[in-house]
Parts: sequence; structure tokens; C-alpha cells
Amino acid sequence: MIRVRATSGANESLKRARRLLKYPRLCRRTGTTLAEGLHLAGELCKHPELIRTIFIREGADRNHELRAVLGKLEHLNIYLLELPAAHFASICPVENGAGIVCEISTPVPQEQVGHGDIVFLDGVSDPGNAGSIIRLSLAAGVSTIAVSDQCAYIWGPKVLRAGMGAHFFCRFIFGKSLKSIKEESGNQCLVADARGGKDLFAENWGERPTIWVFGNEGAGVSQDSLQNSDITLLIPIDRRVESLNVASAASVCLFEQRRRRLLKSAT
Amino acid sequence: MIRVRATSGANESLKRARRLLKYPRLCRRTGTTLAEGLHLAGELCKHPELIRTIFIREGADRNHELRAVLGKLEHLNIYLLELPAAHFASICPVENGAGIVCEISTPVPQEQVGHGDIVFLDGVSDPGNAGSIIRLSLAAGVSTIAVSDQCAYIWGPKVLRAGMGAHFFCRFIFGKSLKSIKEESGNQCLVADARGGKDLFAENWGERPTIWVFGNEGAGVSQDSLQNSDITLLIPIDRRVESLNVASAASVCLFEQRRRRLLKSAT
Repeated sequence: MIRVRATSGANESLKRARRLLKYPRLCRRTGTTLAEGLHLAGELCKHPELIRTIFIREGADRNHELRAVLGKLEHLNIYLLELPAAHFASICPVENGAGIVCEISTPVPQEQVGHGDIVFLDGVSDPGNAGSIIRLSLAAGVSTIAVSDQCAYIWGPKVLRAGMGAHFFCRFIFGKSLKSIKEESGNQCLVADARGGKDLFAENWGERPTIWVFGNEGAGVSQDSLQNSDITLLIPIDRRVESLNVASAASVCLFEQRRRRLLKSAT
Repeated sequence: MIRVRATSGANESLKRARRLLKYPRLCRRTGTTLAEGLHLAGELCKHPELIRTIFIREGADRNHELRAVLGKLEHLNIYLLELPAAHFASICPVENGAGIVCEISTPVPQEQVGHGDIVFLDGVSDPGNAGSIIRLSLAAGVSTIAVSDQCAYIWGPKVLRAGMGAHFFCRFIFGKSLKSIKEESGNQCLVADARGGKDLFAENWGERPTIWVFGNEGAGVSQDSLQNSDITLLIPIDRRVESLNVASAASVCLFEQRRRRLLKSAT
């Protein structure tokens, strides 16, 4: 690791990182992204080959946890850039972080849908929601995530941060239609729709591997998803509330599936 | 409604709103807050007595939904301030909103814990999480929310926004200890703890009204909560994930309770 103090805002690495934060599409085009925080840095110690540059806020390595993480990456042949607080803030997706951001290469997307359950994000546009759903999907045992073109870019800095490291255990499928994913996988397709459907808790949706579809924050799931749905499900919420946030809805659906699977494997 | 175009950044109402956004504690002290967006403005049409001032971004009333909301509030004896985009942005908790923010009075907090289930927020500090939990609690049928002093201020602009109108159907209890809420209500106390506990899905926690405790994003639930817990519960998540986001955890717990209640009432 080559430690450099970069005081100029015109530093090339700093400028590149700033653009990645501002334009998540650039992350996609360049196959790079920014991973903020100690938790992600800790995960990256298991995938050091992905790290290209490390940025820290001046003085951040007074924190012993941060020092420990840097110690594990000491052997890498990369730059560690120490930035004044104002410059660091310009590349950091959160306001009060630990003071570390890693620029990393993003893994190559999967071509095959593979076996097992799949979560299909149908236009989930808020990066925080997309990241939360990736984290909770993995927590519920679903590690294949397919995304429609209308979604927030999955490897963008804010999505990555909200995912809290779950990204590194997931397989991502980009740009395939729900129909083709359904054909390729042979899975049944369950669509969560706040506008109506069968009762999530009462319905027996069987034990086949599933594609779970969650829709856009405002518009909900697309017409295309409804057409490919085997069962459209409604979470029975209190009448005083119009709908659940999409990450909450995904939590409820995916853990209802997990509950049923655990119950079955226990008997 | 008296419509005024405010071009000066030194406008007193504008300055006051800016301070409310910046210092959620000031909301508490003054009994006022900012409600952003069309959804909240629509809810406020049912509670017009709460509205003190309406701010809109110049030209925002080209949107017919926004015009319809303003139409319903036309009779109120309040100022409607039309602001240039840059001034409006300085009082708006989101980046790309519909262009409406209402300054409102916050309802008087409840003294009595009342009957039925309670959600106790034990140091939930992120405004987005706090607001999401209020929304999903109500969706799961729980409308009494008690908050510890370490929580984000429940009526702060960002919490209100994430609550999406659920605030207006909830009773809030401030500054009471879990112990006294437990004594006053007679409810059992169930604590969600990522560090360990009985399996949420396998455990039979009975049918008594419940106080559900959800903890801080980093530190989890407090020692005090663990001491007052009747049953500490663990969501059985996949080993690859350390923990769930607190709003996801609350979704899973509260809808597991809802599932059991609905199942019981159906039989």
C-alpha cells in the first residue's frame, strides 16, 4: 500500500471517485464503484483483489477498527489516499461515516439464472430500498437477484452501502425479462401487489422454487409482471395505511416463505 | 389562503422553516414541524387545523394533483408562500419532491399508554428507519408508539416524511421507561435481538397484548430492555448476513404477530 496525502481537489483519483458517486451509470460503464464504511471495508478484506484505491479522511485511522482493516490490506499494491475532511465528504455517500471509502471493481454479472429462489426487482428506483432488499433477501436465504433496467444500478455506491456487504454473496442478473427468467428457471412467479391479490398468509403457494417480484415505489409492479404472475399476493395490512414501503413488503413476503420452509424442514 | 411570492431568502417564515429542517429538536421545542410532499399534504386535508403555512416551489402548481390539494385548503386563513427553486430546496427534506411543504403544529403527546399492542423504539436514531417503523407498525395494526429519549424526534421532518401519513393515526408516548410502560399496560414485553434469543417463528409467545421492542441501528436493544424482556426473540436469518436492518426486523416481527392474530380470528 502506498500512502499519499492528497490536499488538492484536482487529484485525478479524487475526481474519478466524485464522478462515480454522482453518476451511478458511470459505475456500470466502468465496472467500478465506491464502497463506504468499515463494514464494507471489512467484507472487502475477504475480496482484496477487487480493491483499486482506498480513500480515508484525515485522522480517521485514529479509530483502531479502521487501523485493523488497513493492516489487513497493507500488502496490496494500491494507493491509500488520505484526504482533508472537505474533499473526503465529496466522495462519501453518507454524512457521518467512519471515514473510509474503497474504490472497487464490480464482479462480472451472471448470465445464467441458476437454481433456487430468485428476487426480481421490477423498477425499484430508490438506492436505499434496492440495497435493503438485497440485504434482506440474502437474510431470508435468497441469493439470486434479477433487476429490470428501470432499477437503481445495483452496484452504485448508495445501493452497495445499504446492502451492508450482502452484495458479495449474491448473484445478479441484468437485463433479462421476467418471462425469460421464468422460462429459464422453471420457477413459479409470485408478485406482491398492494392493489389487490390473494392473502399472503392464507394462500398456499406450494413449495416450488419461486421468483418473487417487487415493484416500483410509486407505480408498483409493471403490467408485464402481472401478466407473468402465477399468483398475485396481497399483504393484509390495516386499512388506515395505503401500502407498505417496498423493502418492508419484501421483508414480510420473503420471511413468510422462510418461515414455511423452516417449518417444513423441521417436520 | 393568502398567496405571496417570497423572493428574498431572508423571509421570516422561510428562515423559520429552514431551522426546523436543520434542528429536529427545535420541532420538539416549538411544537411545529415540516410535512413534505403530496401524500402528506393530502392527509393534512383531513386535519386542516394543524396547518400553519404552506410553501410551494415556483410553478409546482402546474401539477394538477397539487392544485387539487391546494383547492381543498383554499378556505384556510393561512399564508401560501411561493418560493424560487433554490429557496424551496433549502426547506425540503428530499431532493426531487412534488414541490410542497406544509409547516404544521404537532399534536399533543399522549400521557396514558392505553390498551392494545405497543411498539417501543429503543434508541432508533435514523429518521428514515423511525418513520418506516411507524408506517409499518400501523400497517400491522399497532398504533401506539413509545419512544426512548435516544430516538430520532418522531415529529421531525424526515421521520414524518418516511411515515407517509401514518403519524396522524398513531398515539405517541414520550419519555416513559419500558418498565413503567410495562407496568401501566400489563402487556408482555417481546424484545427482538440480533445477538440471540428464541426463534421468532417457532416460539409460542401467547396472545396477550404485547410491547415490541426494537433497538438502535448499531448497538441493538439496551440492557434495560433486555432486563424487562419477557421473551427475547431472534429472527432466523441466513448465516451469511450479520443482522437485518431494524425496519426489516420490525416488519418481520410485527407481521408474524399479525399473521397469528388473523389466523386465530379466522378459526
